[in-house]
Amino acid sequence: MLQKLAAEFTGTAMLLIAVVGSGIMGDTLAGGNTAIALLANAVATGCMLYVIISTLGPISGAHFNPAVTLFFALQQQFPKAQILPYISVQIAGGILGVWLTHVMFDLSILQLSTTTHRTGYAQWSSEILATLGLLFVITGCKPATAPALVSIYITGAYWFTASTSFANPAVTIARSFTDTFAGIQPTHAPAFVAMQLFAMALATLTLPRLFAKP
Amino acid sequence: MLQKLAAEFTGTAMLLIAVVGSGIMGDTLAGGNTAIALLANAVATGCMLYVIISTLGPISGAHFNPAVTLFFALQQQFPKAQILPYISVQIAGGILGVWLTHVMFDLSILQLSTTTHRTGYAQWSSEILATLGLLFVITGCKPATAPALVSIYITGAYWFTASTSFANPAVTIARSFTDTFAGIQPTHAPAFVAMQLFAMALATLTLPRLFAKP
Amino acid sequence: MLQKLAAEFTGTAMLLIAVVGSGIMGDTLAGGNTAIALLANAVATGCMLYVIISTLGPISGAHFNPAVTLFFALQQQFPKAQILPYISVQIAGGILGVWLTHVMFDLSILQLSTTTHRTGYAQWSSEILATLGLLFVITGCKPATAPALVSIYITGAYWFTASTSFANPAVTIARSFTDTFAGIQPTHAPAFVAMQLFAMALATLTLPRLFAKP
Amino acid sequence: MLQKLAAEFTGTAMLLIAVVGSGIMGDTLAGGNTAIALLANAVATGCMLYVIISTLGPISGAHFNPAVTLFFALQQQFPKAQILPYISVQIAGGILGVWLTHVMFDLSILQLSTTTHRTGYAQWSSEILATLGLLFVITGCKPATAPALVSIYITGAYWFTASTSFANPAVTIARSFTDTFAGIQPTHAPAFVAMQLFAMALATLTLPRLFAKP
Repeated sequence: MLQKLAAEFTGTAMLLIAVVGSGIMGDTLAGGNTAIALLANAVATGCMLYVIISTLGPISGAHFNPAVTLFFALQQQFPKAQILPYISVQIAGGILGVWLTHVMFDLSILQLSTTTHRTGYAQWSSEILATLGLLFVITGCKPATAPALVSIYITGAYWFTASTSFANPAVTIARSFTDTFAGIQPTHAPAFVAMQLFAMALATLTLPRLFAKP
Repeated sequence: MLQKLAAEFTGTAMLLIAVVGSGIMGDTLAGGNTAIALLANAVATGCMLYVIISTLGPISGAHFNPAVTLFFALQQQFPKAQILPYISVQIAGGILGVWLTHVMFDLSILQLSTTTHRTGYAQWSSEILATLGLLFVITGCKPATAPALVSIYITGAYWFTASTSFANPAVTIARSFTDTFAGIQPTHAPAFVAMQLFAMALATLTLPRLFAKP
Repeated sequence: MLQKLAAEFTGTAMLLIAVVGSGIMGDTLAGGNTAIALLANAVATGCMLYVIISTLGPISGAHFNPAVTLFFALQQQFPKAQILPYISVQIAGGILGVWLTHVMFDLSILQLSTTTHRTGYAQWSSEILATLGLLFVITGCKPATAPALVSIYITGAYWFTASTSFANPAVTIARSFTDTFAGIQPTHAPAFVAMQLFAMALATLTLPRLFAKP
Repeated sequence: MLQKLAAEFTGTAMLLIAVVGSGIMGDTLAGGNTAIALLANAVATGCMLYVIISTLGPISGAHFNPAVTLFFALQQQFPKAQILPYISVQIAGGILGVWLTHVMFDLSILQLSTTTHRTGYAQWSSEILATLGLLFVITGCKPATAPALVSIYITGAYWFTASTSFANPAVTIARSFTDTFAGIQPTHAPAFVAMQLFAMALATLTLPRLFAKP
């Protein structure tokens, strides 16, 4: 169990390093062309997801995402007693990842995001669809292809949702602790998390039917 | 059968979300540099194709494309009675995908494209070659590699055809319902569809010979 | 044999459509930023190579390149009687691919390149290393990974050689027939071909030793 | 043994050609937009890593990196007598790769970097995390997926570390011999190497536990 928690902690930290770090790097270098910054952000996140799901999947299942942990638990594919420990280390690991990124980029470690655009119906509907899509991929894929499919889905989803697809409560919380490209204002985070959990409930009701063995 | 139709419906909706959504996002962020917008558009579409063909292929065959459905039917690899239901849900799913995208990006849901450049001999010959190429890939690939090959082909074809490779009547019809980067004016759509079906007929006559088992 | 020649012809035509078409598209859209044009060019070429080697490999071996055909023949892995037919259809297919691309992009079909920068020691040494690298990949890869490795090598080689890695006499000849982004002036093509054949000879002498079974 | 050393020499030379060559090309073409230059740099490096690890892995293990050689040796997975020969040819191959790149791009062969920004705590902590991450991937992956995982990790790590992830003493030394985009001032190289070796020691203590078989 300790090894599983260490894996979830490490993996979520690495995920946040990729998301926040590549956001800072892209934003700094792109000279105002946000599309290029987002391209770097999407590619780097996809790369990291492929790496951490491939390597840590055999140990902890590679959730790195409370919505995924709950989704499995609701389908009796994950023990209820481990939900809270899993979610706790995911959040803690995510925040540590953000702080390590600040060290790497020479920024003050403790920050709170001040973005203003991550709110409103468009953003919220984006998070519902982004999370539904993620759970769609997880339900529909064969286990061996999960690393490729999840990472490729998220790389694309950066572009085809208006919110750039957080789709992950631990990532959302952690990203409220950085006032850089990838940040989300703390007061806007709860609505994102609510949408993600709503999509998770929706997915639990619909996806098993879509992918039922004939 | 219902499950198959649900899969075709869902998959085509997701495809259009990727095409139209990433078009809007790329166009908005790229600050006038259309090449970067098209790069995002091509990458996001390729990502989504890989995801939906991998996950839904085992259920419905993952056509998402009337030209593909007809191509298989003409070669006796698809039951004729299912042609019409398949094509209907592909078109309906595509249009729903466009509308969901408009919701995500805070645009009016009902739109008709007003693009002016998607017509003329160059565009039409592009659609013939694009569709021929797609059916070439489908005929020539081993089933297990279809998700990778189709998605990679389309990602490239965005760039090496003048029309950015619609290659799909359902996608063409659905894209006439959005006045954004990926749109096509409704009066220009029928010629695109005609070229796609012409290429499908051509493919039926030539490709089985090229890939005949020796 | 006819089927093999049809495969080499078709594949080389498709390769040139990707190289020349994406060059035109990238150059047109990138608004003077050649790096973005080259990125599109490299990605589209890699996509197409992956597709045509995967699908046509089982039929013809997927050479699409006289240097590769000669390289195999010199190692007794390809029948000498088929060298000339293979090379002929590769060149003819390549030229047809260029012409089809001109049709798709509404350009006059018959053109000769007028580029001035594809000559000199830097370009020539680039072609030697590019071709050596390509044959290195072909010699060192397991057959099942050839489509991925060759396409990924060429995508990278666009960037790390000064010549953007033609590495293929048929491609070089065909590209002299287009006065667009990917063109090479006809008087500069022979030196490129000479360097490619020189690298092929060098590869024949060195690579089998490097990859010898212990 | 000679074949192994030839493989390490050739592979490290090819790696440096990719890193330095694509840096020059990207920097030259991107017209001041460093993000696009870095994107080309990251993609080309990832492509080359995939190629050389796939092809040369079966021969030498595809280290191309003194930190990797030492990491394996410390875990008794690599014979101590071969450490010095391996590291020597990695460094020599890397430098040769830089020189060959200068030939290809028509630059004076002998150069020393004059960059000023590759020093300080942010850069050093980046190198620690970058190298830890690389060894994390190597420890956690199944051997068959090493080429994909290592190359994808490094492609991402260009973006999510402030140093663009050298993570390799031989690469660091070789890059001090080029005064181009990828260069590092010789006086700044030792600190980079020290951080990489420190991370290697840290990895030796922690990673085997994280990935222990249950």
